[in-house]
Order: sequence, then structure tokens, then C-alpha cells
Amino acid sequence: MRPVKLALLGCGTVGSEVVRLLHEQAPDLTARIGAELELAGIAVRRPGRKRGSLPVDESLFTTDALGLIKRDDVDVVVEVVGGVEPARSWLVEALRAGKSVVTANKALLAEDGATLHEAAAEGAADLYYEASVAGAIPLLRPLRESLHGDRVTRVTGIVNGTTNYILSSMDASGAGFDEALEKAGELGYAEADPTADVEGFDAAAKAAILASLAFHTRVTAADVFREGMTAVTAGDMASARRMGCTIKLLCIAERGPDARGRESVGVRVHPAMIPRTHPLAAVQDAFNAVFVEAEAAGQLMFYGQGAGGTPTASAVLGDIVAAARNKLTGTRAPGENAYAHLPIRSIGEVVTRYHISLDVAERPGVLAAVAGVFARHEVSIATVRQSGRAQDAQLIIVTHGAPDANLAATVAELDQLDIVRSIVSVLRVEGGA
Amino acid sequence: MRPVKLALLGCGTVGSEVVRLLHEQAPDLTARIGAELELAGIAVRRPGRKRGSLPVDESLFTTDALGLIKRDDVDVVVEVVGGVEPARSWLVEALRAGKSVVTANKALLAEDGATLHEAAAEGAADLYYEASVAGAIPLLRPLRESLHGDRVTRVTGIVNGTTNYILSSMDASGAGFDEALEKAGELGYAEADPTADVEGFDAAAKAAILASLAFHTRVTAADVFREGMTAVTAGDMASARRMGCTIKLLCIAERGPDARGRESVGVRVHPAMIPRTHPLAAVQDAFNAVFVEAEAAGQLMFYGQGAGGTPTASAVLGDIVAAARNKLTGTRAPGENAYAHLPIRSIGEVVTRYHISLDVAERPGVLAAVAGVFARHEVSIATVRQSGRAQDAQLIIVTHGAPDANLAATVAELDQLDIVRSIVSVLRVEGGA
Repeated sequence: MRPVKLALLGCGTVGSEVVRLLHEQAPDLTARIGAELELAGIAVRRPGRKRGSLPVDESLFTTDALGLIKRDDVDVVVEVVGGVEPARSWLVEALRAGKSVVTANKALLAEDGATLHEAAAEGAADLYYEASVAGAIPLLRPLRESLHGDRVTRVTGIVNGTTNYILSSMDASGAGFDEALEKAGELGYAEADPTADVEGFDAAAKAAILASLAFHTRVTAADVFREGMTAVTAGDMASARRMGCTIKLLCIAERGPDARGRESVGVRVHPAMIPRTHPLAAVQDAFNAVFVEAEAAGQLMFYGQGAGGTPTASAVLGDIVAAARNKLTGTRAPGENAYAHLPIRSIGEVVTRYHISLDVAERPGVLAAVAGVFARHEVSIATVRQSGRAQDAQLIIVTHGAPDANLAATVAELDQLDIVRSIVSVLRVEGGA
Repeated sequence: MRPVKLALLGCGTVGSEVVRLLHEQAPDLTARIGAELELAGIAVRRPGRKRGSLPVDESLFTTDALGLIKRDDVDVVVEVVGGVEPARSWLVEALRAGKSVVTANKALLAEDGATLHEAAAEGAADLYYEASVAGAIPLLRPLRESLHGDRVTRVTGIVNGTTNYILSSMDASGAGFDEALEKAGELGYAEADPTADVEGFDAAAKAAILASLAFHTRVTAADVFREGMTAVTAGDMASARRMGCTIKLLCIAERGPDARGRESVGVRVHPAMIPRTHPLAAVQDAFNAVFVEAEAAGQLMFYGQGAGGTPTASAVLGDIVAAARNKLTGTRAPGENAYAHLPIRSIGEVVTRYHISLDVAERPGVLAAVAGVFARHEVSIATVRQSGRAQDAQLIIVTHGAPDANLAATVAELDQLDIVRSIVSVLRVEGGA
């Protein structure tokens, strides 16, 4: 069999691990594919940069990505550059020309996956992107294929390692956000600018990809409600602990009828309290996990390392093997399956529960006044805990499920009450009865 | 597009759920496949049996399974009968004729998967069996495809719901085995004859299938070392708890060099203590989970319902969708990939750790004599705990890793010592440093 030729775009943390694994595991990969994998070229921005330890010939490096993609002998294009452009133009070019694409680019998939899927359909080419969500965890293939005979109703994920490291560390040590972030930075779990992680942008992109696959519809990053986790305090974590909960930054994608009974999809990213008995509560440090609920399969969870060069390269290699096999047998994996065309539910329509912590004046009638606000917005209270202090008291209220708009309106009105000195924190509660 | 026609063999718990889901989810399945799925016939032993609630025409039932399989219009044969024969003959017939097969038959796959794989290669047919291991959990497709660019080193699984229910219940309540088994039976988690579950036969079959896929080699049920969990006592569980552990019935498949440095595979099923901090320790009740370690991907875990009609039917349906799509596009999934031909390591060569509980005479020199036995067999002791009682004392010894043969010889010699009144229990310890 002739070798299957790869064009690698990008040679950073993930790319160099892909090169290393292609070399180290070559005999196994050849045996599994039935032909050799051969690197046709590696497109980089700075070809002169020292890459001494990589087991490849220096002549493979080029700055001309498009020229490499267009080469007749290239079968599979592997993109680990990231970002929307120029990656989109490159991959569209490759797919239209019938070359298979393996990409780890979550930003591109989440912002404009449609363009890639259309180009793949046009060129009858494979488009694989397992590494774009939850690193090494085999997640997209199970959603795309294994659960195709079932109806997924909900996907709840911890898909950002940085924020999970910070929250685990706050939970374990009682530290505040700033201290935990600093420690995460020292250990290499947080970047110098952690905005994309702590503000939930990274998780929102992954949520869009997961929701699209789980519900057979198109969801983009712009459809995802997003709230970061920088406001979570040591006090919130302590309060969660008293409730038998912990706090995680979750991405949640749900399918179901909206207020008018119309089937729709709601996708959101925000910090939430979850019971310690929930399988996601045990996910520590920088690990990722995705909890899937399906009508027939019931509850499933996929757990593993969500980032890092080597784990991500494992997912890329798995896709390369699949794409190479298809090339050799002249077949193609199932393409995009977005027949459902489900409308997106706004966050206001999403039914959730709130944990609200208030500093209130300690005088008779306070609870009645506060409870009245909840009642006016048709929000039912599950539990109230009151702890008096010198002049003030703290009220901790947990609601039953209600549309987020009603809960938000309740909080806004509470903020206007004279007897409410301050709203200490508002957190959603997930994963329980 | 013409419909894809299915022959269903068996209509028990799983089969009737397959029929129900095919009916209920028909519009979605058609959209995902691009053609309708149509039941061509259902082979049963007793066609007259009341199946009133099933949404199918009575005329579809037949007792002539082979006749149904041979019908020209049948594209995919779905087998949920179980057992080696006549299932093997039926499926070989189907595969050789180029019909795709979807089966949940772990016994057949584990005893003689080779015959099925060869028939599939002969007929260029698809052979899918996701439902044969860990019910609804997408596990075989990830091992078969997602991790194909990586090297799996170890698979540790809780793959039997009955025994996990029993052990979880012993752990939670302090009950003994008999009491927990009785409760499991009352709740429908244990069969009238629980032998296949509690003696580890069921888990051993699944271990063989997992090991074959993970290591690209052939492993049969006969290659699996098997020890049941009926000897686990409430005292063992209490002892595990004191060590910060719990006890699970594990299937463990490992790849690595044997004593002579030859790459080999060891596969075993036995109860073992694991630390409570291990992700598998949190798997409660009848849930299943499989922990996979791979060189690049690191640690992964797959969690979900391992049994039950509906979850198992979800896995069967996922395979049906894949097989039907391939039929329509004239393609075929990757076949068996058993190029590695790895020898099987005997249990004696497997390196593990023991937790040994001894009733010993309380007199000077006992510990020295006992420790001498360990030293003679080159087994290093990690911890010793001694608890005196009226005339006797109890010694609890946990070893470092050593070949199982050395550990077994140590226990045999201890049993001969006068000062050892009885060997109370011997348990392997897994999943920790």
C-alpha cells in the first residue's frame, strides 16, 4: 500500500507531540491502518526556530501553509494552529479539494462549524475534531456514533481544566479565587491571561460543539449563555459545603420543550453548586468530565484529561488513523447530521434553581417581605436559613426550579428592598432533585 | 432511498426494547440514517407467546431463524438471544452472506470471537457488538477507534452490575455477602442463580473482549484468570475501610513485559481493595465503569448503566444505525485488528499486592517468623498492623508489588506455620501507589 501523506499545520505544544507520537508509534500505526503514515510537510510561522528534539527532517518545515495543503500528494490535513483565521480558509481549501481534515480547533468549530461542514460535504471529505473538546476523552465519536440510536436529553460538562483546578483548590483549601488562580498559574494550569478560561469563553465554545452533536442541530458560541467564575468566593464555597455541595464551572446543554411547548435547545456556561454525590463533583484538579443523559442509555459519564500536549495529541492521532483508513478504503465517515434545526432557548426561559445569599436588617417582618418578592415572581422557595449577627442577619435561600427570567427578576427586586443591605451572592444549583 | 431491513433474533428483555425504540424513534433514526429501518422479521422460540404491547405486526414472528437470516431482503441481522449455539451458526451464516451483524452476545464473542471476525472478513461484512460489554456505555467504539493512535497499557473495569450492587451495599450497610445478595435478588439486581455474576464468569467474558480490543490481540474467556467474590466478608470490607479503601470486583487487563522481558498480556477478574480516592471507588450500586490508561491519553474513565433492557437496547440501536449507514453508502467499518499476537501472561507472573489477614498465636517471635516467610519468597511488606485479643492476635499485612506466584507461595507457607491459627482472608490490592 502507498503511504498516507499528512500535512501538519502548526507545530506548537500539540503539534510537536503529534510528530513525536507519529514517529514513536509508527509500527503500531502502520499495522492498524494497513499503510504507513508519512509527514509531507509541517507549516509553521517561524521555520528557523529550534526544534532540535523533533524526529523529523528540517526540510519538512515550510511557511507556506496553503502551498502545502494544495500539494497533490497530501491526503490528510492536520490543523493544530487554532483561531478562526487563517485556519478556516486553509481547511475550507483542503476539504473542498477532497482532503480529509483533522483539527483541534474549538474556536473555529464553535464559531463557524457550518462553513467547514459544508466544505466537507462539497468535497466529500472527512472532517474529524475529537481533540477540540475535552482533549483526550473520546467524546465526540460516542456522541456522533454510539448514541445515534438514542435521544440525548442533557449534557453537563466540566470542560475547562484551569477553572476546575481553581475551584477544586478553593474547595480543598478554603482559599479565595485570587489565591487559587495564582497557584494554578505557578503550576502551569493557568495562562498569563486567564480570561478565556475564567470568563467561560473556552467552555462556551466546547458547549456549542457538544450541543450540536448531541442534539443533531447547529449551535454556535454566540448561542451560548455565558457567565464566568471570577465572582465565586471562599464564602460561596463554604456555603456550598454546608449544603453538601461543591461549586463547578459547568457547561449545560438541554433539549426539551420551551414555555410554548416548542422543542428547543438551551446551552449555557456558568458556575453552579452540585451535590457532592453527583459523579461530576468528584472530578478534581485539571481533569475534565462530561455527564450525558439519554432516554434509553440513562446516565453516562466520560472522564479524563482535557488538555495538555500529549493527551490532545492522542485524540488527534485517533482521528488521523480513522481518516487514513477511510482514504485507503475510499470510504467516508458520517458527515454532519444537523437535521433537527432546533431553535435556541434564551437563558430567561431555562428552568434552573438559585442559591441566594442576602445581608438583611435584623427586624421583624424581614422574612415575610423577602418571601413576598419570591411569591410575586412565582418562584417557590425550597429552604431558608437565617443566621443572625450583631446588627444584621444573613438569609440563605434556595429555590425550587423556575425560569431564569423569574429568578433574575426576583433578585433585581430584592436588591431594591430597604431591608436588604446587600446581595452577597447568587449561584445556580444543578444536578439534584 | 429503499429501507434498510433488519432481522431480529430474540425478543426478550433487550429485544422487545429494541422493537419499542425502533418504533418510537423512527423519525429521528430515518433522519440520521437517510433511509427507514424496517423490521423484516423477528425470530423467537415461542411465536404464540403474548407480546401484546409490542408495536409490531404478529405476522413478523417466526421460529425459523435461519430462514429469516437467509432472506434476500435482509440487510442487518440483530442478535439478542445470547449463548454460544445456535447464535454462532446463525451469525456465521449471516456474515458470510455479507449481511451486517449487530450482537449483544458477550459469551460468544469471548469464547469464539475469532470465528465471527473471520466470517465477517470473508463476507466483507460489519460486525458490531457494543452492547456485549458494559451495556449502554460507549466503550468498544472508543477503544476500537478513538484510541487507535495511542497505546493502551491497562484497562480496569467494574463490568458486572450485580456484584457491584452487592459490594456497594456491603460497604454502605456493613452487611455480609449473603444478606446483600438476598437484597440484590429482591430488587431485581441478582438472578435466581447468581453463579455467572458472583463467580466472575460474566466479568471474565467481558474482560476478554476488552483486552482483545485494547491490545489489538486475541484473548478468549479461557485466557482470563477468574476468582469470584463470594468469599468477601463484612470483616474484609471493614478492614478495607480502615485502610481508606473499598472492595470491588475488578476486571484488569494489562499489557507489558513479562519476567523474561517479552511483551505480553495479563487478564484477570477478582475482588480487590482500591483506595476510596480512585475514580472506580465512587461507582455505586449496579453502575459499571471502565478505567483506561493509555500512554498519551493518560487516565480515562467511562461510566454508565451496564445492564437492563433499555440501556442495552440503546447500544444495540447505535450499532444498527452505524451498520445501516454503511449498508447505504457501501462502506464497512474497520474490521478486527488483532495484529499484535501477544502471548498471555499467567496469573503467577502478574505483579500485584496482597492484603493478608491472619489469626496468630500471641507469643514473642510471631512477627519475626511471619516476616521470614515473606522474605524467603522475596515479597516485600508495606505495612503490618497487629491487634491483640484474649489468647490470639490478628496480623494484617499489606505487601508491596510482587509476582502473584510468590505471593501465593507465601500464603501457602504461612498456612503451614504452627503459630498461624488461620488465614482469615487474602485480598489483592489495586489502583494505588
